[in-house]
Amino acid sequence: RDRWYEIIFEADTPAGKLFDVLLLIAILLSVLIIMLESVKSLDQEYGQQFGYAEWFFTILFTVEYVARISCARRPLQYVFSFYGVVDLLSILPTWLMFFAPVEMQSLGVIRALRLLRAFRIFKLAHMLSEASELRRAVWASRSKITVFLATVLITVVIEGTALYLIEGDQGSGFTSIPQSMYWAIVTMTTVGYGDIAPVTPLGKFLAAVIMILGYSLIIVPTGIVSAELAHPGGKKSTHWVTTQVCP
Amino acid sequence: RDRWYEIIFEADTPAGKLFDVLLLIAILLSVLIIMLESVKSLDQEYGQQFGYAEWFFTILFTVEYVARISCARRPLQYVFSFYGVVDLLSILPTWLMFFAPVEMQSLGVIRALRLLRAFRIFKLAHMLSEASELRRAVWASRSKITVFLATVLITVVIEGTALYLIEGDQGSGFTSIPQSMYWAIVTMTTVGYGDIAPVTPLGKFLAAVIMILGYSLIIVPTGIVSAELAHPGGKKSTHWVTTQVCP
Amino acid sequence: RDRWYEIIFEADTPAGKLFDVLLLIAILLSVLIIMLESVKSLDQEYGQQFGYAEWFFTILFTVEYVARISCARRPLQYVFSFYGVVDLLSILPTWLMFFAPVEMQSLGVIRALRLLRAFRIFKLAHMLSEASELRRAVWASRSKITVFLATVLITVVIEGTALYLIEGDQGSGFTSIPQSMYWAIVTMTTVGYGDIAPVTPLGKFLAAVIMILGYSLIIVPTGIVSAELAHPGGKKSTHWVTTQVCP
Amino acid sequence: RDRWYEIIFEADTPAGKLFDVLLLIAILLSVLIIMLESVKSLDQEYGQQFGYAEWFFTILFTVEYVARISCARRPLQYVFSFYGVVDLLSILPTWLMFFAPVEMQSLGVIRALRLLRAFRIFKLAHMLSEASELRRAVWASRSKITVFLATVLITVVIEGTALYLIEGDQGSGFTSIPQSMYWAIVTMTTVGYGDIAPVTPLGKFLAAVIMILGYSLIIVPTGIVSAELAHPGGKKSTHWVTTQVCP
Repeated sequence: RDRWYEIIFEADTPAGKLFDVLLLIAILLSVLIIMLESVKSLDQEYGQQFGYAEWFFTILFTVEYVARISCARRPLQYVFSFYGVVDLLSILPTWLMFFAPVEMQSLGVIRALRLLRAFRIFKLAHMLSEASELRRAVWASRSKITVFLATVLITVVIEGTALYLIEGDQGSGFTSIPQSMYWAIVTMTTVGYGDIAPVTPLGKFLAAVIMILGYSLIIVPTGIVSAELAHPGGKKSTHWVTTQVCP
Repeated sequence: RDRWYEIIFEADTPAGKLFDVLLLIAILLSVLIIMLESVKSLDQEYGQQFGYAEWFFTILFTVEYVARISCARRPLQYVFSFYGVVDLLSILPTWLMFFAPVEMQSLGVIRALRLLRAFRIFKLAHMLSEASELRRAVWASRSKITVFLATVLITVVIEGTALYLIEGDQGSGFTSIPQSMYWAIVTMTTVGYGDIAPVTPLGKFLAAVIMILGYSLIIVPTGIVSAELAHPGGKKSTHWVTTQVCP
Repeated sequence: RDRWYEIIFEADTPAGKLFDVLLLIAILLSVLIIMLESVKSLDQEYGQQFGYAEWFFTILFTVEYVARISCARRPLQYVFSFYGVVDLLSILPTWLMFFAPVEMQSLGVIRALRLLRAFRIFKLAHMLSEASELRRAVWASRSKITVFLATVLITVVIEGTALYLIEGDQGSGFTSIPQSMYWAIVTMTTVGYGDIAPVTPLGKFLAAVIMILGYSLIIVPTGIVSAELAHPGGKKSTHWVTTQVCP
Repeated sequence: RDRWYEIIFEADTPAGKLFDVLLLIAILLSVLIIMLESVKSLDQEYGQQFGYAEWFFTILFTVEYVARISCARRPLQYVFSFYGVVDLLSILPTWLMFFAPVEMQSLGVIRALRLLRAFRIFKLAHMLSEASELRRAVWASRSKITVFLATVLITVVIEGTALYLIEGDQGSGFTSIPQSMYWAIVTMTTVGYGDIAPVTPLGKFLAAVIMILGYSLIIVPTGIVSAELAHPGGKKSTHWVTTQVCP
């Protein structure tokens, strides 16, 4: 049982690494099939093959799920962990659709959640340290990021309200404050669909202001994480350098 | 009175922090209601409930405003400070609408300005130092940012004028120089609504030039604040390091 | 004459600084009037006032131009310098339109070029050093920027050609290679107007690839200038630090 | 033969540099002609001239190709190298179209691949070291970039599936999961064509979330390469600085 635990849960041994890579390929293939199934023209032609493949992967993942429970040192802890829940959610819909009536068919897309299992890729060797370094840099900047997001959201609400007042009765799509806020986010993040766009001169002026603001604001989080990655520990080490004295 | 001052105006004591958090929640809730009120379908159904909630928050904020004035060490200074004005503006419209005729109803949206009170969030503990560090980095880079914005604006005016000359009589939306400048900002900040877009080959060529310029220009402010955050004090400390000599 | 030279050409003395600031305001005002003149509804109402203002600024700038020539130590050098040509171009069109027949009226927009004079703002005190530091950082990175721009342009040509082959006969706007390249630039710089967009699955896949590429590529110039600003002189100083030895 | 080898394959001698620059100009000119040929109105007017120019460049490049083979120290290695294949592909279509029937005419656009030869520009003197430094910085960050791209792609799949479920039957363009994923990439990279856009409140809310995520995520790769360029060798040298002790 210990040997199986090593293969299934760890990625340090060659066998464990091979298991994780094969599992990753199976996950990606099964997600690909769910995607292709959603394309109507492909579903009509290859619907049956997709069904067979789906059952193949469901049985495979069910076997793996049972193996994980029986190997795990603390089975309950695994079952209620993030990956445990995702593993269950990725096999449940197919079984439910087998026993349940036809009208539950549309639930099948929930299976796409099995892609979340692909996050296991971060367990692989050298990924791990990189991912954790990035996570550390983001974590160390969490207060700065909160300040940044708070500024963005307050700007979005004020700008959204302003454009609702100015353009509300112009038929240009600013029909309510939430709708205007959606436009403000679309504009500030420089996405710019164009389904809603100001038509009055004042509205256009305010839109130009928020665009330049959004275009400039991106510097803030960039600078934060940049500085954090370049100098782990931040201000302290820099201070240390600037105050060093050779006796 | 001193105790109340501590609770209301400061955020160092547990009671002061609790007060600020509760106030923040009340502000966000009251802003949420103003937003939902602006959605016509919701307003027709829940209009009365929204009215009750609005009065609840207005009375709450009025009590708080009176408490702030009576606690403040220098009441007048508070009344004419940024937060004092915002606090007044966030309760005034509801009271005015109560006494005033129906045609002032549309002024109600000004209440959304009470969101500005949410900036008080930056008073909370560890937010404060982060916010002030960001502010310092932006402030230290103010000359560079002015140079950057001046370059952007001059580019926008020249590009706007050029496209007004080229596309003005093509019916593609470049009907005046301000309109063309609006397009130039939309393009340079990479928002790109598509409501105005060049149709002549020369116009498209110039548009491509400004796009690549805008795409490249974002490096400038990013680099500035990045460098400023990584090395507080900038050139000096770096110079110090490169010229140090161990005796 | 020396005193006038100081006032007009330099910005170190109080009088010189005041002259530059006043000139800047006059330039911005006169450009504003040209902009407003291009809005048809405003031109019909205030056309005459705009004409008076235009003559006021033209005479002012003519006086200034003559003063600059008579004060300059080497008048010819000034006349053929960048600012000398711009100064002339900003007054010439109005005089030409005065003597020339009506059909030259449309040339009036060339006057907008007088905005180029606004670049004199960079002469003002502390702007100068900042602007020159930015210019130095950009200049030091010129080879890297060339490599970056060459990569972008080659990608645009290849992607443009590919989508012309794939979508050329789909009526989705990819009518020629230059047109497809215009689309590729619009997409890669994340502007995304939407006037041209792929409709075939293969076209959409290639578009997604170039989007992610463009979204990731922006890191390259950002990193370059960022690193250059943080460490003037670049690798050398860093090396120096890492190899220092205290005896 | 050694002298020719130096001229053709190397860029250190003046003659070798001149050869490379002239070749680059010929490549760019021939690509320009292929582009202009694809514009129908120009092709009808100057079709014959384009044909003559095409033959001129094909013969030129054929001579160069033969020269390269006869000069190369290991001809076979050159023929099967990246540049060898590109060099052949850039002359083959014209010769094939000469001998082959009319219906192969459309293959002519493959000639545009000869632009790939323009990558030879990176052989030129000072470009080389810059390009290799950038390549090194990107290479050193490859694990972090993989983590970043994996996060982006998983987000795109989950968001695409979510919007397919929510908006699938709203006629707003989310007709299949691959189509929704295309939309998610267009949105997350802040391109935002607007040909597909959510219409339901929930869809708009999720779209706003992915926009802010995409807008914030760009910080990650920027920070990575930025830090890598500023501190070649990364953590080690920094650590060295922070732990140095003067005896």
